[in-house]
Amino acid sequence: MRSFEALQDKFQRNVVFVLRVRLADDADALDAVLAAVTGLGAHTAEVALLEHRSGHIDYDIQVFAADDDQMTRVSKAVSDVPGCTVLNVLDLAMETHRGGACEVRSRTPIKSNTDLRIVYTPGVARVCKAIQATPHLARQFTNIANRVAIVTNGTAILGLGDIGPVAGLPVMEGKAAIFWEFVGISADPVLVDTRDADEFINVVEKIACGYGAIQIEDVAAPECFRITRQLDQRLPIPVFHDDQHGTATVVLGGLYSAMRKTGRKIGELRCAISGAGAAGTAVADLLIHAGIADIVLCDSKGIVSRNRTDLNPEKRALAERTNAENISGSLADAMKGRNLFLGLSRPNIVSREMVQAMAPKPIVLALANPVSEIARDDALAAGAAIYADGRMMNNALAYPGIFRGALDANASSITTDMLMAAADALAAAVPKGQLMPEMMDPNTHRAVAEAVRNAVK
Amino acid sequence: MRSFEALQDKFQRNVVFVLRVRLADDADALDAVLAAVTGLGAHTAEVALLEHRSGHIDYDIQVFAADDDQMTRVSKAVSDVPGCTVLNVLDLAMETHRGGACEVRSRTPIKSNTDLRIVYTPGVARVCKAIQATPHLARQFTNIANRVAIVTNGTAILGLGDIGPVAGLPVMEGKAAIFWEFVGISADPVLVDTRDADEFINVVEKIACGYGAIQIEDVAAPECFRITRQLDQRLPIPVFHDDQHGTATVVLGGLYSAMRKTGRKIGELRCAISGAGAAGTAVADLLIHAGIADIVLCDSKGIVSRNRTDLNPEKRALAERTNAENISGSLADAMKGRNLFLGLSRPNIVSREMVQAMAPKPIVLALANPVSEIARDDALAAGAAIYADGRMMNNALAYPGIFRGALDANASSITTDMLMAAADALAAAVPKGQLMPEMMDPNTHRAVAEAVRNAVK
Repeated sequence: MRSFEALQDKFQRNVVFVLRVRLADDADALDAVLAAVTGLGAHTAEVALLEHRSGHIDYDIQVFAADDDQMTRVSKAVSDVPGCTVLNVLDLAMETHRGGACEVRSRTPIKSNTDLRIVYTPGVARVCKAIQATPHLARQFTNIANRVAIVTNGTAILGLGDIGPVAGLPVMEGKAAIFWEFVGISADPVLVDTRDADEFINVVEKIACGYGAIQIEDVAAPECFRITRQLDQRLPIPVFHDDQHGTATVVLGGLYSAMRKTGRKIGELRCAISGAGAAGTAVADLLIHAGIADIVLCDSKGIVSRNRTDLNPEKRALAERTNAENISGSLADAMKGRNLFLGLSRPNIVSREMVQAMAPKPIVLALANPVSEIARDDALAAGAAIYADGRMMNNALAYPGIFRGALDANASSITTDMLMAAADALAAAVPKGQLMPEMMDPNTHRAVAEAVRNAVK
Repeated sequence: MRSFEALQDKFQRNVVFVLRVRLADDADALDAVLAAVTGLGAHTAEVALLEHRSGHIDYDIQVFAADDDQMTRVSKAVSDVPGCTVLNVLDLAMETHRGGACEVRSRTPIKSNTDLRIVYTPGVARVCKAIQATPHLARQFTNIANRVAIVTNGTAILGLGDIGPVAGLPVMEGKAAIFWEFVGISADPVLVDTRDADEFINVVEKIACGYGAIQIEDVAAPECFRITRQLDQRLPIPVFHDDQHGTATVVLGGLYSAMRKTGRKIGELRCAISGAGAAGTAVADLLIHAGIADIVLCDSKGIVSRNRTDLNPEKRALAERTNAENISGSLADAMKGRNLFLGLSRPNIVSREMVQAMAPKPIVLALANPVSEIARDDALAAGAAIYADGRMMNNALAYPGIFRGALDANASSITTDMLMAAADALAAAVPKGQLMPEMMDPNTHRAVAEAVRNAVK
């Protein structure tokens, strides 16, 4: 599969679908189908023979497409191939999420009445009484110590905005699936149907006692800052906002890795950040903590400066602790002469010229999802020494290991030191010749977990 | 295992433990150990040989004991057997709940970067957008339609009382394990840390959008009545309080079965209920609906009558719709001359004499857990024609199938008709010679689910 993934990377093909076709038993038909796919600019990945009977052959053809429109055109073109019938078109993202990406299962088989009486009444009363007498036994005799709530109100789902908690649920389920597959954590999506920050805080506070940690997810700025801070203060367990803390950790890990590759020092970085929401703010704070003194952030109205009168309190505070020279202007002004661009904002807002106006051989991390602030080829053509997009620098590199480490250490919160340790561990796990560690390598998550565990005071 | 389960039934042995012993390599040592177990009134179940080396043999000996004290004495006696060393004493209920009885798992393997991009970003955005455009697709492309919240505030955990939500969590996890094993439903324990009914209602209302149905569990009366009613009114999904509706369904199913065995008609039943809390009240209401006109309930202060001045509003309303003759007195007075006793209260509060004073050949369902209002032998000796305790008439007979049916039918609430249908199905599933259906037979739960599905309007 690696070559196909490389292909998907290179061409930014985000739609994966499977064409199930029935071909007349004719050696040339498959060639004609594949030609139809590539003729429209899509890419064939796997081709699987399903059934060969006298008269016909059935194939599943996996196709990477740029968008829905291309997918529709490919399907139409294939059905026009003589001797070819399209039996089915499966959208793999939809099919994978059919029925949900995660589920709650029993950890013990119930095959007899004795099993039932041990897992349920009357045996379970013994477990309840033991916990009543010695509350910390709940960490041993329930799933609490391995259980994370992934909580959202749906106000900032991916780059899609405020689509509500139910439409955001597939993201929460996807994160839960990653938690299980990467680090064996039980993660429960919790949808809180309110846009009111205080109500959100109160609901999470009331249900928190059933979990070992809380992951706030896809809650819009600026409310997310107060929500995370207040819950962290009120609750005796870790509270982590992935859009803030997860992103900041992955970015810092990537920068440490870039420093190794380029021989630069972190203190030499002069940073322009596009995006002053949850991610931009948290990244700026972690970079300040890591020793980067020169940071300028931009929101959709331009540079966040102390001269602006349109800033909310969170951004006013941000203007106080960044932008030391208090410059004003556009994103292009912010990037001019700086050697690090961090994109945490919107697609295609950075031009080649803006990169050319940066200091020589800049680092360009254009992390907007699913389409970057500037494409790789443009950034490299404009002189970028290092480039990454949001698929290489994915939060799923950090949050599974951070939670594994925090739960294992019975941490009461996730501190900046723990995030710094995770970023260090990410950089140390990078294979030669790459910028980021391998997401699919269990050692990546193990290394992050161990570093975080050791950083718990 | 069936013979051991029968043994456990007969002797009401609720503690199951495993003694791991090392014996000198001597043929008589095991006999001496087993004699020590039975000599103290406990019962040996399985004996498993673990290891036989020169000089010693290791065994796991499964023992059913009446209580912790007996377990301790057995362990001590076994360790006193010459040539025997007790290596370990495992409490099976505790061991089964170690790490929790349920967990959240991925429904899809994540083995490649392509898998990751389909279950998570960027692929998941397609699923979110589809649901945003067509909200009812959430039932197909998330786990919602198969997901139940098991919600408690810990105020009435089993017979243990108000021990708080965390100490009650093993019960919620046990129920979730049963949901998965019996009917493949994903059930999430949700602990709400409040004793305030309005706050409980508000929290559940805010998080309900992530579930296909709500099971209220082990919430104390009288608050449970208002909580269940209000949530049922406010939410577009089924709300079910197992202590009320589950118990009522199982009791009615058992009565239908008893009618078949005795040839009596349901309208001939004259019923005394001990317990006027969540279960007693809901059972009374379902029995009224089923056509039993003569029902008298007792709480700890005696018969619930319209003369009493100490009743809360729920019990005052109960006194209006039961006890037609408005009699007063004790539980013994209530039972006198009636032909059905229903115990939903406390251990050992019914004497042989009280059963003898009932109408001839009464039905005695003494369902207090883990110890009945009156033991089987006493009830039968006093003339009971039919007897059952809380282990035979377990809620786990009803709630899995009721939820399976309600979710499959996309029901918006669980109606009395659906409970009646479930009770009918339970009675129809009873094997010849038994009073209740087989809990471990998947057909039992399938039959309940089908009946409930068909009863959805």
